[in-house]
Amino acid sequence: MPSTLNPKEATGNQSSWDTLLSDFPKGPLCKYRKKASFNWKEMAVFLDGKDTIQLKNRIFSALESDPVFARHPGEDLCREKYQELTFLRCKRLFEYDFLTQQEIIENPLKILNMLICIGMYDWSPCLQYFLHCGIFAGAILSASMRFSDFVKQVYSMEIFGCFALTELSHGTNVKGIRTTATFDHSTQEFIINTPDFEAAKFWVGNMGKHATHAVVYAQLYTPDGQCQGLHSFLVQIRDTKTLLPMPGVMVGDIGKKLGQNGLDNGFAMFHSVRIPKENILNIAGDVTAEGKYSSSIKQWRLLPYLAAAYALDYFSKSLFTNCVEFYAGLLTEQRSRRQAGMGREIHALSAASKPLSSWTAQQAAQECREACGGHGYLAMNRLGEIRNDNDPNCTYEGDNNVLLQQTSNYLMSWMNCVRDKAPFESPFGTANVLQDYHHILGWKFTAISVEDCMDSSVPLAAYKWLVCYLLRESDLKLSKEKQSGRSDFEAKNNCQVYYCRSLAIAFIEQTVLQRYHDYTHDPNIPSTLQPVLKNLSALYGLWSLSKHLAVLYQGGYASGEEAGRFIQDAILELCYRLKDDAVALVDVFAPPDFILNSPIGKASGELYKNMWAEILQGSKALNRPSWWAEFCINKPITGRLRSRL
Amino acid sequence: MPSTLNPKEATGNQSSWDTLLSDFPKGPLCKYRKKASFNWKEMAVFLDGKDTIQLKNRIFSALESDPVFARHPGEDLCREKYQELTFLRCKRLFEYDFLTQQEIIENPLKILNMLICIGMYDWSPCLQYFLHCGIFAGAILSASMRFSDFVKQVYSMEIFGCFALTELSHGTNVKGIRTTATFDHSTQEFIINTPDFEAAKFWVGNMGKHATHAVVYAQLYTPDGQCQGLHSFLVQIRDTKTLLPMPGVMVGDIGKKLGQNGLDNGFAMFHSVRIPKENILNIAGDVTAEGKYSSSIKQWRLLPYLAAAYALDYFSKSLFTNCVEFYAGLLTEQRSRRQAGMGREIHALSAASKPLSSWTAQQAAQECREACGGHGYLAMNRLGEIRNDNDPNCTYEGDNNVLLQQTSNYLMSWMNCVRDKAPFESPFGTANVLQDYHHILGWKFTAISVEDCMDSSVPLAAYKWLVCYLLRESDLKLSKEKQSGRSDFEAKNNCQVYYCRSLAIAFIEQTVLQRYHDYTHDPNIPSTLQPVLKNLSALYGLWSLSKHLAVLYQGGYASGEEAGRFIQDAILELCYRLKDDAVALVDVFAPPDFILNSPIGKASGELYKNMWAEILQGSKALNRPSWWAEFCINKPITGRLRSRL
Repeated sequence: MPSTLNPKEATGNQSSWDTLLSDFPKGPLCKYRKKASFNWKEMAVFLDGKDTIQLKNRIFSALESDPVFARHPGEDLCREKYQELTFLRCKRLFEYDFLTQQEIIENPLKILNMLICIGMYDWSPCLQYFLHCGIFAGAILSASMRFSDFVKQVYSMEIFGCFALTELSHGTNVKGIRTTATFDHSTQEFIINTPDFEAAKFWVGNMGKHATHAVVYAQLYTPDGQCQGLHSFLVQIRDTKTLLPMPGVMVGDIGKKLGQNGLDNGFAMFHSVRIPKENILNIAGDVTAEGKYSSSIKQWRLLPYLAAAYALDYFSKSLFTNCVEFYAGLLTEQRSRRQAGMGREIHALSAASKPLSSWTAQQAAQECREACGGHGYLAMNRLGEIRNDNDPNCTYEGDNNVLLQQTSNYLMSWMNCVRDKAPFESPFGTANVLQDYHHILGWKFTAISVEDCMDSSVPLAAYKWLVCYLLRESDLKLSKEKQSGRSDFEAKNNCQVYYCRSLAIAFIEQTVLQRYHDYTHDPNIPSTLQPVLKNLSALYGLWSLSKHLAVLYQGGYASGEEAGRFIQDAILELCYRLKDDAVALVDVFAPPDFILNSPIGKASGELYKNMWAEILQGSKALNRPSWWAEFCINKPITGRLRSRL
Repeated sequence: MPSTLNPKEATGNQSSWDTLLSDFPKGPLCKYRKKASFNWKEMAVFLDGKDTIQLKNRIFSALESDPVFARHPGEDLCREKYQELTFLRCKRLFEYDFLTQQEIIENPLKILNMLICIGMYDWSPCLQYFLHCGIFAGAILSASMRFSDFVKQVYSMEIFGCFALTELSHGTNVKGIRTTATFDHSTQEFIINTPDFEAAKFWVGNMGKHATHAVVYAQLYTPDGQCQGLHSFLVQIRDTKTLLPMPGVMVGDIGKKLGQNGLDNGFAMFHSVRIPKENILNIAGDVTAEGKYSSSIKQWRLLPYLAAAYALDYFSKSLFTNCVEFYAGLLTEQRSRRQAGMGREIHALSAASKPLSSWTAQQAAQECREACGGHGYLAMNRLGEIRNDNDPNCTYEGDNNVLLQQTSNYLMSWMNCVRDKAPFESPFGTANVLQDYHHILGWKFTAISVEDCMDSSVPLAAYKWLVCYLLRESDLKLSKEKQSGRSDFEAKNNCQVYYCRSLAIAFIEQTVLQRYHDYTHDPNIPSTLQPVLKNLSALYGLWSLSKHLAVLYQGGYASGEEAGRFIQDAILELCYRLKDDAVALVDVFAPPDFILNSPIGKASGELYKNMWAEILQGSKALNRPSWWAEFCINKPITGRLRSRL
């Protein structure tokens, strides 16, 4: 274990802590702070050490006192202004020069602490600074000492650097890099070339507006036409006096992202750009090799959400129809027991289906965004907008967890009937699973092969057991809490986690599955469509159920290694069977391209062409930044502001 | 089950489908589309029905042909312009009047379908329209027929409405609403009053810029001083001719949100605003009652993430120290076996700890955002920015899932030594858990009480078993795949889900826990700090482990109901014990207020005061929108554009 991290430094005493760390302003949190079992200042000194706390204090107070870093409440900066401000802040970091070489050598952890402090303020200037001084300079320095003069220019900001590995269509998959560097023996130069736009360097931080030089990864070709593998090269991409592109270089900004919009991520294409042979840096052994995308994971990631979309869409429409019946009753002033029961049942169903569907949508959007890699993070593809627009569904009309409590209350309200074995039914039939409560609790998982599990009747049976089991457990837990003298409110609260909350989730999943199972197994469904619909139903059921596997084992419904493995293998097998239907299943409900408005999601599937076209249409994608003189003329004086610290 | 959703309509034939739905443009997706087992058009017609597809076509093509709805690639609309555009689009929806009363009565599901179509274009104008015509008008209509003239003004947009229930400090908790309506017998009026800014109506959609009238929920007081409970009232808040606030009403926009920024969510305070007694709508029986916040859930939601922050912070610093040792070796050109082994081990650790920490951070940010309710969705509180800035960590330098594969490859590479029982160790010791592989596989969960589980040694032992078990299973699965004749690449891919991926995650969690366990159990830790640090270690370990509970049962490490329950109860007990330390634990690593820049998160804890101050500082929060004439003068003519459909 690293020695500097081991506890050994004495933590000092109250007065030494007070000189390092000041007290918090008085307020409503005071009373909670007093309850702590330990002194937070002692903990901070113990964890970080005096030295690091002083560094943090120095950085934080420098930023707070500097107008360039001022906060502007309610500001709605456009992206361009934000990029300009980020660059000014980055220059300022040169002038503060928070850590000397000596300090870094004595305690390298300080670099990490410094970056975290600046990042907590804003990650954009922090990354801009680190990409230039750390990654770019590091790549050059580690190549050869002959670049040391060049590195001096980095630290005086005579040049500005970026690290260009990723390409538009190949991400960071090293083998897929298609930029070429061909050695020309006659002139002793390398010729850097981008074969087509899909091989454009892409996502490169600092490249969008500022970088004058790039470390470019390319396949090296020798004059005999042999590829010698991936190497890196130092290429000038903009003029240092004007920030205009160098001849043969097309360079620009990739546009708005979901976050970190102060940082200028860019693209570049090289058209036979010649560089001296000295500018080769090294072979690519230092680049993380990356395997091919594992396709079985991709489908496993997204296909269950596709199945969920079908099942939940059907459920929402069926619930809407239930509501229509209920409101029709209201309008005709029905006072029947059925009318009152409908109200309660709809409330219980909607209180749990909102959490289920808003969380599922949130996870699906995030999963899609991650499955698209960096491109999912590009604002134009709208995966972020879709996620962010869905996000308030998780809290409005009541927090999801509070709503789930209302559904479990509804289910618990049937316990008297269940215990007394009195006959009952709910108007829409969703509570009727409890009619067989005592019988169902005796059920076991009985499938003896993967093939056995391929129909949604298997997860449906498991869900029925799960609902009854969790109802019994919640009821027992509540009695226990009440017996121990807790108030009604407190007792109910203590039953939420692992009991009532799980009960409400299991119940609504069971209900959604029951309705979708009935629908997909209806004999009137066209025989051309039924197989795929049944597969969707089975996949949705098994995938949802798999999140409850621990409870199935814990409560004795399942036992042995096989049960879980059957379920997992059935999920994979269903994903495999649905793979070829996936595009068509999306086609069925996809909105037109104009509505979707996402280059990566257009119906043609020409995602790179579409993205490329959209980027070039972006205003000012290729423009020199209006604040170019802030780089070309007003250079920062390194360390100028250190005396202020 | 609702009859309109049952399969009965004949789906027609290819030529009827082709007239309803056109083919997709040719492109790379063609070949995948051909693989489908069914005809997507038949499926669409079957699921939605001809009628609904025609409605969708009508709406989609109207929006696409209308310049008001044009898309502008690369546009970076400021929020104010976006709000203006949203209002113009909302007016346009009046002019299209997509559904007649008759159509709605014949098939109410069409309302849902229409809203979904518009929402897929953009949820902001859809919600603006629906809040006005649906929620606001509905609340008034359902109160009494005497408002029917008033409702006509809604549909001609003479007035514009909103639904004001939520208050700044009380969300949608009905009992907590503090706005009052006092009946004045002498004038036969109600006097609407906001006692203080924490009871300001808040988050109300349409209220920020446009609404002239609000349905306001308030506690009704009769002249005898008695509170008669929650009622709703129709209150005019802006002049319909000028859009300026009515006397006594302070109304404005709450500022930027994480999404849906076209919609103008607003706030309002009432200073003795008098309304005629006829403007009482009804009692609040139609408002969803909501229980108090379940505090046991809140802590359960956030405390494990706090523990994870401590454990992962320690791990990242220890890994950084490992890297320093490794790079020192590189600089001094060490060629030892240890040097090579360090490189491989660091790679395996970083390839799995990036996914673990970026996913944990993503989930923590989302959980915090949801735990803060609507206020977490307000941009000024910066939970969205923190989430969005972290988000690229999930994909850059390689997708998380691809990275995990590299860690499992590393672990699998030790299997030969393990099988041969050859001695081995890894430079930083993280693979040494495999030295006892055969022995560990025989371990069982032995705790016999909750108290037994309260130390991180319990989850640590379970993790060691888990790593060995998943390694064995992954190895078996790989052999099986290879024996069945699959290529190396294919075989490895098929082992990812449920095997290698889980192995890599379990391994890194075990390693993080091992290091944090050792650290927190070091005898040199000050006795004042050790108890809370041990609790954090135990909570992190148990909480992480609980996600693997199914495998523990499946593989026979745990059995019976008690094991799972002990773990769950121990998690809850640890959350309970850490509750009082929570604020101080955050204080230890919280950046200063200026750096955090989040009114909801300021150290004083005066969140409502801080938010309120920030909102009022926002530029134009209280201003009349510059496009006010678009409401006051240029009224939409309902149905004017229907003929274009």
